Amino acid sequence: MLYPMSKRPVENSPKLSAVLFNCTLKASPETSNTEALLKMVAKHFDGLDVTHETVRVVDYHVPPGVTSDEGKVNGKQDEWPKLLDKIKAADIFVLGTPIWFGVRGSIAQRVIERLDGVYMETNDVGQFPMYNKVAGVAVTGNEDGAHDACGTTLYNLGHLGFTVPPNVDTYWVGPAGPGDSFIKAGGEQHPYTVRTAKWTAHNLVHVARILKANPVPPEGNTVEK
Amino acid sequence: MLYPMSKRPVENSPKLSAVLFNCTLKASPETSNTEALLKMVAKHFDGLDVTHETVRVVDYHVPPGVTSDEGKVNGKQDEWPKLLDKIKAADIFVLGTPIWFGVRGSIAQRVIERLDGVYMETNDVGQFPMYNKVAGVAVTGNEDGAHDACGTTLYNLGHLGFTVPPNVDTYWVGPAGPGDSFIKAGGEQHPYTVRTAKWTAHNLVHVARILKANPVPPEGNTVEK
Amino acid sequence: MLYPMSKRPVENSPKLSAVLFNCTLKASPETSNTEALLKMVAKHFDGLDVTHETVRVVDYHVPPGVTSDEGKVNGKQDEWPKLLDKIKAADIFVLGTPIWFGVRGSIAQRVIERLDGVYMETNDVGQFPMYNKVAGVAVTGNEDGAHDACGTTLYNLGHLGFTVPPNVDTYWVGPAGPGDSFIKAGGEQHPYTVRTAKWTAHNLVHVARILKANPVPPEGNTVEK
Amino acid sequence: MLYPMSKRPVENSPKLSAVLFNCTLKASPETSNTEALLKMVAKHFDGLDVTHETVRVVDYHVPPGVTSDEGKVNGKQDEWPKLLDKIKAADIFVLGTPIWFGVRGSIAQRVIERLDGVYMETNDVGQFPMYNKVAGVAVTGNEDGAHDACGTTLYNLGHLGFTVPPNVDTYWVGPAGPGDSFIKAGGEQHPYTVRTAKWTAHNLVHVARILKANPVPPEGNTVEK
Repeated sequence: MLYPMSKRPVENSPKLSAVLFNCTLKASPETSNTEALLKMVAKHFDGLDVTHETVRVVDYHVPPGVTSDEGKVNGKQDEWPKLLDKIKAADIFVLGTPIWFGVRGSIAQRVIERLDGVYMETNDVGQFPMYNKVAGVAVTGNEDGAHDACGTTLYNLGHLGFTVPPNVDTYWVGPAGPGDSFIKAGGEQHPYTVRTAKWTAHNLVHVARILKANPVPPEGNTVEK
Repeated sequence: MLYPMSKRPVENSPKLSAVLFNCTLKASPETSNTEALLKMVAKHFDGLDVTHETVRVVDYHVPPGVTSDEGKVNGKQDEWPKLLDKIKAADIFVLGTPIWFGVRGSIAQRVIERLDGVYMETNDVGQFPMYNKVAGVAVTGNEDGAHDACGTTLYNLGHLGFTVPPNVDTYWVGPAGPGDSFIKAGGEQHPYTVRTAKWTAHNLVHVARILKANPVPPEGNTVEK
Repeated sequence: MLYPMSKRPVENSPKLSAVLFNCTLKASPETSNTEALLKMVAKHFDGLDVTHETVRVVDYHVPPGVTSDEGKVNGKQDEWPKLLDKIKAADIFVLGTPIWFGVRGSIAQRVIERLDGVYMETNDVGQFPMYNKVAGVAVTGNEDGAHDACGTTLYNLGHLGFTVPPNVDTYWVGPAGPGDSFIKAGGEQHPYTVRTAKWTAHNLVHVARILKANPVPPEGNTVEK
Repeated sequence: MLYPMSKRPVENSPKLSAVLFNCTLKASPETSNTEALLKMVAKHFDGLDVTHETVRVVDYHVPPGVTSDEGKVNGKQDEWPKLLDKIKAADIFVLGTPIWFGVRGSIAQRVIERLDGVYMETNDVGQFPMYNKVAGVAVTGNEDGAHDACGTTLYNLGHLGFTVPPNVDTYWVGPAGPGDSFIKAGGEQHPYTVRTAKWTAHNLVHVARILKANPVPPEGNTVEK
């Protein structure tokens, strides 16, 4: 076998970590369909010896804005800085979002907007700070819109400096029109979603590991001051 | 310097090759704005010791369809198979397209549709055949639509198995409404486009080189029969 | 009842006509799923006393371009002019398209591109020629992408001068991932699609009739030379 | 002149009203570029004898959700109900939004999500409550994304029951990449934006007036219980 197996080198390779953002519109403790799909991805991370944390963004005070710290807004301290720190500390970022009106939800859009702030920063070799991290998406909706939500989000994340491995979009949608959501519809057993959750997790881990050992050189891609 | 420079290992690393598809609507020998942008990318490939070929798709007979060979259509043999062979032979794929009505042009859409055929194939370890190749985009329009054209295309290519390095979208658009196109407007000197053409080429080469030496393992991402 | 019923005024109001473009990728006589959905819309037109014609675009020679007549291309006369004449002669335009890779197909994109040519023309009061016509869409795909295909298309048509009545998008998609297409999946009985086909046809007819009797005045919306 | 002029019938026709939602991310009293564009539209409303009000949504407490009243959230009463009342009371709705990462901003997405609640209601003849209202959009961004923001938004609004007149999208974007925003870049004098602001206002008024006198009949488009 010419290919290095992903599990074999674990002993001598640095441990990977992942952070998963659940961008549901529903505050805890309401049941979140998007969380159910993120759990399918996270379970594979367990099997691949990747530490992980899931954050439900709506439970935090993340005001509108495009900087990394909006300070006190409506009398309450911006909590985005601590969420951003989690992304910065991780090798793998997964953005999970519901679909509303055919596109990603407003919380996911908020997260992307707040990430605008990191365009002002660089890593220690002069690249955008998200270089050498990988990103994937997990999308649920009762119908239609997964391609748009996945495509827009992965493109935005690539623009921010993440690498996008192959097949790191897992999603579930039902047939046209109103209908049951992911959990109630039995989406956790839907073969396409089962498979893409597996592919998403594995390819994120594979490419994160490859990039950790072989970072993208700071040549032709550093930020001019 | 901890990072391997991309030029240094050239002697002992395999030579990379790139294929650039120009999806202009205009047949040769008409001037193509998209080609002008692709040349900016290709020039960087020259400097990075990457062989490359640019294909103007509209000059070939590529009938509508979603297989890898549509046979004889309107009395003429489908020429997609030879274009597909060029993608398969390359390490790097760049799709260049004009924007029409806010989205990628019909020739670009045609190319993506024809790539549907490769979902039926695998590489020799059971993954989609585009695994371990990288993809980027180059988009021109007299105004608005680059994000949509780039995002949709990179997402589709990632779904087909390509890896998408960071910042591999170079584009030029002018301000809102009708106006001059890329060449006439002097877009080749537009700082943002100059920089993103450089970043696109470099990151495609960096990640292609990394994946060639460290392919994505066939674990958790192979196609079930 | 305060509202005028749509059937009552038929005797004294001018007869309406509709043209439906089927933008399937498949040439005749192959079975087209999109045609099956268009037939559901057309059947309502029959009941509403609207004459109609369905055109399968791929059966015509419509070369790439953005003018209303590309002349002889690959040795064959451009047939777009006669398709354009059908749109100009009709009160109602319905664009039917399959989804490929999450967006409208290449033939639909081609049709939109060719409509660019009418930006050069005006009606006899100086507005874009599509003023006082209405447009709707019919979209089929085995999964996901209807919102994008509908939204992009209706927006483009509105930009060209068509009025878009409420709820004039009918579509069918199945659940996430590969699966049966419209006809085979029994989509013709899918309640959401049955209802939206009805709504699409009725609202197109209602608003076309209203605009025919009460055209949009040429004030603040005419083209400067 | 065969066409009724829009100003002539004003005396004997009911007065029209418009509500414009400014979906900037910036709370008052920060300068909003989107507001500057909305003012251009509103000025035309003045000339057309249409009363109007502009609402800066971010100044209100509009929590995430998809109902018309989320009750008390984070200790504060949901203010969406009073915003929704303004839409219901108006003949014309204009949604203004900035572009962030190539798409409409999170506040605009929030507004659309909250409108989901009205799918549960009908007007007094059984149609969706937005029937016989018209909608338009006003979009600003320092670059690229107007087509996506306009198209997605108008499509969503049409789905909710609004009619979309021709050419009711006014926008301003600058050339590719970072750059000055609307006001600073002098966008208020940009000919395309000046013209489309005029067209947007006039066509909204024309079609609102036409529909007020000739409502869409409740035939083939009412909601089944």
